[in-house]
Amino acid sequence: MTQAVADIGLIGLAVMGQNLILNMNDKGFTVCAYNRTTSKVDDFLNNEAKGTNVVGAHSVEEFVAKLKRPRKMIILVKAGAAVDAFIDQLVPHLEKGDIIIDGGNSHYPDSIRRTKALEEKGLLFVGAGVSGGEEGARHGPSIMPGGSDAAWPSLKEIFQKTAAQSDGEPCCDWVGQTGAGHYVKMVHNGIEYGDMQLICEAYDILRRGLGLNVTEIADIFEKWNKGVLDSFLIEITATILRYNDKDGEPMLDKILDSAGQKGTGKWTAINALDLGQPVTLIGEAVFARCLSSLKEERTRASKILQGPQIKPFEGNKEQFIADLEQALYASKIVSYAQGFMLMREAAKEYNWTLNNPSIALMWRGGCIIRSVFLKDITNAFRKNPTLENLLFDDFFNKAIHDAQEGWRRVVAQAMLWGIPTPAFSTALSFFDGYRTERLPANLLQAQRDLFGAHTFRVLPGKENDFLKPNSDIHVNWTGRGGNVSASTYQA
Amino acid sequence: MTQAVADIGLIGLAVMGQNLILNMNDKGFTVCAYNRTTSKVDDFLNNEAKGTNVVGAHSVEEFVAKLKRPRKMIILVKAGAAVDAFIDQLVPHLEKGDIIIDGGNSHYPDSIRRTKALEEKGLLFVGAGVSGGEEGARHGPSIMPGGSDAAWPSLKEIFQKTAAQSDGEPCCDWVGQTGAGHYVKMVHNGIEYGDMQLICEAYDILRRGLGLNVTEIADIFEKWNKGVLDSFLIEITATILRYNDKDGEPMLDKILDSAGQKGTGKWTAINALDLGQPVTLIGEAVFARCLSSLKEERTRASKILQGPQIKPFEGNKEQFIADLEQALYASKIVSYAQGFMLMREAAKEYNWTLNNPSIALMWRGGCIIRSVFLKDITNAFRKNPTLENLLFDDFFNKAIHDAQEGWRRVVAQAMLWGIPTPAFSTALSFFDGYRTERLPANLLQAQRDLFGAHTFRVLPGKENDFLKPNSDIHVNWTGRGGNVSASTYQA
Repeated sequence: MTQAVADIGLIGLAVMGQNLILNMNDKGFTVCAYNRTTSKVDDFLNNEAKGTNVVGAHSVEEFVAKLKRPRKMIILVKAGAAVDAFIDQLVPHLEKGDIIIDGGNSHYPDSIRRTKALEEKGLLFVGAGVSGGEEGARHGPSIMPGGSDAAWPSLKEIFQKTAAQSDGEPCCDWVGQTGAGHYVKMVHNGIEYGDMQLICEAYDILRRGLGLNVTEIADIFEKWNKGVLDSFLIEITATILRYNDKDGEPMLDKILDSAGQKGTGKWTAINALDLGQPVTLIGEAVFARCLSSLKEERTRASKILQGPQIKPFEGNKEQFIADLEQALYASKIVSYAQGFMLMREAAKEYNWTLNNPSIALMWRGGCIIRSVFLKDITNAFRKNPTLENLLFDDFFNKAIHDAQEGWRRVVAQAMLWGIPTPAFSTALSFFDGYRTERLPANLLQAQRDLFGAHTFRVLPGKENDFLKPNSDIHVNWTGRGGNVSASTYQA
Repeated sequence: MTQAVADIGLIGLAVMGQNLILNMNDKGFTVCAYNRTTSKVDDFLNNEAKGTNVVGAHSVEEFVAKLKRPRKMIILVKAGAAVDAFIDQLVPHLEKGDIIIDGGNSHYPDSIRRTKALEEKGLLFVGAGVSGGEEGARHGPSIMPGGSDAAWPSLKEIFQKTAAQSDGEPCCDWVGQTGAGHYVKMVHNGIEYGDMQLICEAYDILRRGLGLNVTEIADIFEKWNKGVLDSFLIEITATILRYNDKDGEPMLDKILDSAGQKGTGKWTAINALDLGQPVTLIGEAVFARCLSSLKEERTRASKILQGPQIKPFEGNKEQFIADLEQALYASKIVSYAQGFMLMREAAKEYNWTLNNPSIALMWRGGCIIRSVFLKDITNAFRKNPTLENLLFDDFFNKAIHDAQEGWRRVVAQAMLWGIPTPAFSTALSFFDGYRTERLPANLLQAQRDLFGAHTFRVLPGKENDFLKPNSDIHVNWTGRGGNVSASTYQA
């Protein structure tokens, strides 16, 4: 009879799975590895996992038999049908209290569904977002687990030891019920899209606007990495800028400028639209990838659509680079503020209790968006767990006020140069809209009432006999038409 | 026995339904009116429809019995379950070849579903987008019908006579199969969101930036309405700006600046994300409504987030206003170009044959976005039905080149002033991105390859032994990590 030797099992031996197994092994846990194509199990045991405590399984039955109870099984395969297929294969072999963990990039509605379905069978389900790429998985990722509350005590030690440690705290904590783990991972990825787009825009401005070369730009990113922007993505940007092909040309200049976007960034933007939250920076970052992917159309367009000639910069370059750092910093603050606005609304919508300081801490290390900045966010939410918005926190409030002059100069200059800055500029427009008590949406409401009798509300302080508070008001703007207002039909 | 006297029937006597009936009556058709709350039928017959040929029905049976064959029944009720409920009520009383028309703002997937379900029963279904608000419905709306091809010959005369006429042509033509009619209406509404947002931004700049009063701004919109911006929405903006409350204060200044957005604009933005098309202007317009609706949060934010002091404008006001007109015009060109990009992709995705010149013509008159501008779009697509992008057309190419200097000055100034221009600036960023052969997405691809082994493609012209065309390339950027590349797992 097979002995139950493993503390945890993992299915799916692509790069992330292999590295996560080796990481858990390093932390003192015995891991059982399984893969649908079982030759991959042998390859792994004979190569990367050679000399470790990792054990292998060549069938689902063997895999389950090798796990100590309650069984803990991480599925790390392509999101979608493959996850359900493995769950279906596992379930007949499991016992009450066993825990299936989906560590892939699943869409949170699937995790909500799977939690409910497995709990009905007496099993436990956890949807755990894992971020950090190859390196993170190998040495300590950010792990965002949510689902069956009862599963957490059995997982806490393994997960928190496997996760990255930041300032002495693990970048893993219980996120919340049902799909909360994958939801927070989704928002993380959306924010990652935004951070990457902001860096691309900064690079483009330095390269095409200021006319700097890759080495000069790498120096700038390295300098930035010692300040408020200190983060993994800034660090690797410098690494990339310094990487040359064999002929000495920057590898970067040989890479096709066409990015995919069919993933979690898109889900975040769609969810923002569904929940009515202005998460504009992620939206623009997703659309920027869409535009990048129209490479051939852009190439044709570039021949017939001319912009301004970019002339050698005559201002103070040092000052402009400092402005750009502030533009990137301020835009990032806006992006994270928008992300937390979205999670606040999601918690209401899906009935989760989300712990904002923990979320910021989970992102603090291990994951792709890890940064010093996230420590400041953790601090802000620890200081005030019911903080309405990051921009209301003293630290970020001061930071964005200090940044805004340079931010405005950079965006204005990019517009005049003809360098696209969709993320920088949407962030600035959001900041200006968010701090505006009276937006021109009153005109929009008047238009809707004029052409569709959609009615409007009175501005507080302007009430009178006709303009009654809390009532839907219709004006006959043109003196024509009937006295009906739209009840059920929205044109 | 009830006599079949009516050419067409209409269910749903809200403002749009009543007006559409009166319109069809004016054009010489006998219409039968029905409403779930039947007292509304009597009210309508005794008031608005008094002295017309309109007949009423007080039950579904009576309604169906009063229609000539093939029966043509327009349902004009709230989108969603109510439409299915009326279809279910009608079906048992219908015969082969009868035509159910949904004239509401249904979501196109519902129309795809309904077309298939009714065709299986031998019936015909048409999802017809109707735009024009109260006035349009009464005197000639834009009608965008799609669905069962076999239905069109029976509907063509009624629909084309009922629709608005523009330059001697009806603003109604057959759009395409299944959900194509409602799809095109959805995009129309998304574009409407964009047009309205652009006007709001222009108004905000004139009011807060230049410090003009409502009368001065009304004069400007009236002037614009005689030029390239000549359109319904510009016209009604002037009307609204001149409308005063009884105390002489502009009514506009008493309207709550909080707009709803749970409709077709949101659907368009979500569809754009799903189809991977950078329809950024509609996206920003929807998000701008979201932000407007956070009125109380904005009010609190306005107390603690300060922007620049807007000083009296020292430049040439006339020039700036001319620049603003160009900014609005250029942004609008971008928005329509994006809308047609989306429809091109949708036609591929849903297997429709969409007729671009006809779509532009249907929007030319009757509907909310009607404008002189749409005549130019019709011309562009008539000149070249396979036009890749509006910006490739000589007319629009020249227009946007002529506009761009002023456009850039306006957006840069708004950024410095602290007046939010999410739509103006996303349009400009799109223009600059679209005309850029090499975007910084190469850096983004390098980042993805570094942290997740996601691979990249080589830029054409840069191929070598390692950088092979059409292959997924992975670089070990840091000199650490394994040699595996991401196959199934996307972190």
